[in-house]
Amino acid sequence: MAKYEKNGEVSYALGTTLALELLMRKPKAATRLYISPKQKKDDTYQKLLSIARSLPIPVIENNEKIFRELSDKENCMVIAEFSKFETPLEKETNHVLLVNPSNMGNLGTIIRCCAAFGVLDLGIILPAADRFDPKCIRASMGAIFNVRTQAFSSFEEYQAAYANHACYPFMLQAKTKLGDAHPASPWTLIFGNEATGLDASYLSVGEPLIIPKTDLVDSLNLDNAVAIGIYEFAKNLL
Amino acid sequence: MAKYEKNGEVSYALGTTLALELLMRKPKAATRLYISPKQKKDDTYQKLLSIARSLPIPVIENNEKIFRELSDKENCMVIAEFSKFETPLEKETNHVLLVNPSNMGNLGTIIRCCAAFGVLDLGIILPAADRFDPKCIRASMGAIFNVRTQAFSSFEEYQAAYANHACYPFMLQAKTKLGDAHPASPWTLIFGNEATGLDASYLSVGEPLIIPKTDLVDSLNLDNAVAIGIYEFAKNLL
Repeated sequence: MAKYEKNGEVSYALGTTLALELLMRKPKAATRLYISPKQKKDDTYQKLLSIARSLPIPVIENNEKIFRELSDKENCMVIAEFSKFETPLEKETNHVLLVNPSNMGNLGTIIRCCAAFGVLDLGIILPAADRFDPKCIRASMGAIFNVRTQAFSSFEEYQAAYANHACYPFMLQAKTKLGDAHPASPWTLIFGNEATGLDASYLSVGEPLIIPKTDLVDSLNLDNAVAIGIYEFAKNLL
Repeated sequence: MAKYEKNGEVSYALGTTLALELLMRKPKAATRLYISPKQKKDDTYQKLLSIARSLPIPVIENNEKIFRELSDKENCMVIAEFSKFETPLEKETNHVLLVNPSNMGNLGTIIRCCAAFGVLDLGIILPAADRFDPKCIRASMGAIFNVRTQAFSSFEEYQAAYANHACYPFMLQAKTKLGDAHPASPWTLIFGNEATGLDASYLSVGEPLIIPKTDLVDSLNLDNAVAIGIYEFAKNLL
């Protein structure tokens, strides 16, 4: 009953830390708490039980199978199930927009980085890696419970909804260096797919930017490029 | 005969792109070229043969087994074997120094990022993830053939060898923000282990720096932190 399904309605926060992040940050999304029979009856255990009772959500303590099915880690003793949530982006805040990101690890790391720099609105143009896959939740270190994420079927759909945003597509063909950007607020930093980047049509969107680099590599890793872009735009806001 | 061994003398560049990077950038390290019987006899094939003959190194075209043993990718048709190389860092250039990095993917991505920003000297304090593991070579996208990497048994050993470098340890306990650093040349940016960071002793080394962040996450992903640090220090040199 409990393998993760991309098209299903629920996902899972694996491990005590992630489960606690979910229960504290997104309590309304939590649906069920699994605790392994091997979990010690310590303070953490009491804390989990007490939060689960206050929500309230059912606590299942006799299902060893789900731990084998969902986790490849020996020491995963707690799993929190939750309903996938769609959280529309705010209109007046700064955004990051990913166009067709394909790697779940990258996506999770980017969500973590958004939270680190206080950019709490992440748009995703489909098709894209599944942001609710437990691997992505884990890579985000739970930051996905703090960052609003919304999927769009096209860039046009995003743009129509957030027409007030100044757009900064990151492209190797851009002329303006990141450090010379003219940030207008609220801003949207736009990044393409790991393998293909943004197509040339984005050269006419807002102010395209390039992160200067040597010719020794074709490009930066996507999550490194996003980290550098957010850092440069957000560093004076922190 | 050809599983990768951490304590062995050789490693492997998997796939055509990586193999070509090796043969062009580090020809003296190359020891052998494997070409799958399934490889098309196209221009790339001719180019590989011609480079291999010019070095010269043996070309083995009838060993299907090595492809199964070394690669989990169906479309890997070329493997270049090479001798592991130690390349002492330059004295007058800028460095990145990683203290006990434990993740091979992170390490490869960091090497790629160093090459992207023209920081071609990377020191590694042991114990550390194996920079010559084929997974790390692949994560570096071949940048390891352009970046000098040298292992040290302790920070003291590194410091004695490169006493002329101004050191900037990246630490959550630091007072000075990255953007307010006073870069002196040549510099060394120092980063700790993924889980533990740098210990408090580094607070008395050079000018400790912090990348400002919110309280929503405990830390940045290591390779994101390194990317941001190198970008900020190197952006005016590119």
